[in-house]
Amino acid sequence: MQLATYQFDGRRFVGLVSDDRQSVTALDLPQNVAATGVLAVIELLAQGEALPPASGPALPLASVRIEAPLPKPRRNLWCVGRNYHAHAKELQTSVFKDNDANPESWPIVFTKVPECVVGPTDDITLPGAAISEQIDYEAELAVVIGKGGKNISRANAMEHVFGYTVVNDITARDVQMRHQQWDMGKSFDTFCPMGPWIVTADQLDGTSTRVRCWVNGELRQEGPTENLIFDIPTLIETISRGITLYPGDVIATGTPAGVGMGMKPPRFLSAGDVVRIEVDGIGAIENRFA
Amino acid sequence: MQLATYQFDGRRFVGLVSDDRQSVTALDLPQNVAATGVLAVIELLAQGEALPPASGPALPLASVRIEAPLPKPRRNLWCVGRNYHAHAKELQTSVFKDNDANPESWPIVFTKVPECVVGPTDDITLPGAAISEQIDYEAELAVVIGKGGKNISRANAMEHVFGYTVVNDITARDVQMRHQQWDMGKSFDTFCPMGPWIVTADQLDGTSTRVRCWVNGELRQEGPTENLIFDIPTLIETISRGITLYPGDVIATGTPAGVGMGMKPPRFLSAGDVVRIEVDGIGAIENRFA
Repeated sequence: MQLATYQFDGRRFVGLVSDDRQSVTALDLPQNVAATGVLAVIELLAQGEALPPASGPALPLASVRIEAPLPKPRRNLWCVGRNYHAHAKELQTSVFKDNDANPESWPIVFTKVPECVVGPTDDITLPGAAISEQIDYEAELAVVIGKGGKNISRANAMEHVFGYTVVNDITARDVQMRHQQWDMGKSFDTFCPMGPWIVTADQLDGTSTRVRCWVNGELRQEGPTENLIFDIPTLIETISRGITLYPGDVIATGTPAGVGMGMKPPRFLSAGDVVRIEVDGIGAIENRFA
Repeated sequence: MQLATYQFDGRRFVGLVSDDRQSVTALDLPQNVAATGVLAVIELLAQGEALPPASGPALPLASVRIEAPLPKPRRNLWCVGRNYHAHAKELQTSVFKDNDANPESWPIVFTKVPECVVGPTDDITLPGAAISEQIDYEAELAVVIGKGGKNISRANAMEHVFGYTVVNDITARDVQMRHQQWDMGKSFDTFCPMGPWIVTADQLDGTSTRVRCWVNGELRQEGPTENLIFDIPTLIETISRGITLYPGDVIATGTPAGVGMGMKPPRFLSAGDVVRIEVDGIGAIENRFA
């Protein structure tokens, strides 16, 4: 299934996107339930209920406004840093400088606030030069948790994956680095475009897909998810140690090499730039910086 | 005002605690609104509505079960690290080791998940030796935001404070350190006891109070909030740069010297230990580790 959250006729709906990605059909959900987007469906299914029937007519995708599948996640998104070797290397003198003998022994996990999520084609608000002049993109595959749990083993982890979506983990590099902990530099308003929909785990193997990113049409990032330093089962095992995961939790799995900070000299984003991120088997998000 | 969330007769209520802290009177709120605790009142007031009238009888505090004033905060709690000089010094070779020439130039801000909040007398669950053997306490004054906003200046920051409460920012030191980013080691289930209520800003000046912590009756931490490296207005200005703050957001302001990790040799918490934290002008929380 491909589950989308969208606006039509001034209301929010959750719907099934057709296999050819040309149309969407609304699921039969009360309006106040559909208000939380695909999260409503994830929670219903996690409670053992059936998928609500698709009741409306198939609407052309072009006639609706696609929103983030999770317009406001249930809590901060979990995000993983330094999770592709080449990316770890490109930032080893700036973001990932540390004194560990083996800096890749443990995943780095931080968060982004739920309210920074915006839709797959929404504009991103640059915060202004007084706040940050080092705005950077990070193309990522995001895992969406279905069945919750705590102390989940690697062996059972994939049973807890509901599906996958695309995010841009937009980052203010100067803010990220000067405060040492990254949550603030990752959480500016509009800094998490997400979408275009969630593809369920029966349809896509997130452990074997490809993440790509273009800035103004120029290919900047390309990484197969087989290259993750910490794979998806390891991330779920790690984050759920002592911490209950809930249906609808998001884990952004980290970004491949090719971010602006890693270029010589660094190239940060400016007003008018357009960042497109595509994950094979899901689709693309494309956002203009303004 | 002293606003508490509590259970009585199998239902959750929000109420006004009497000045002598002997009784509580319920505010007239629909049951589904009272479900979010004091957050419901903060949001009503932020929308310009009046405080709901206190309608019930005054119940003795001993007859109700006091819960965390915000039983589930609206998103991850903001927390501040290294915010008292003596504490920065006691952990300078472990948690706060960095290469900065001036490591106290910028606040360190991380988060705790909302679901780790528990009540002021609830038991804390030790995660087990396989997950962490370095569980530590951090006594803190927490600021609760009333009026939301973005890019709030120091000069206006105190207008955005609704009130104050007490938290224990419980930490798994080994997990905190090995993952470099702290959110996971701070977010284990039950790792944020909070309470016993929120004292509004018209009744308490959080910039001039005192935080104390006892472990099994032994005084371990004592710090006047005048000693904060980054004061409350600075924290609000910093976190709201580019990031909208919302009514009910929590900012835990950091802990004074005297944590278990800073002792020689370190002394971590074990089953049966009782940690009591008191902030002058608010009250105390006391939790047993099990």
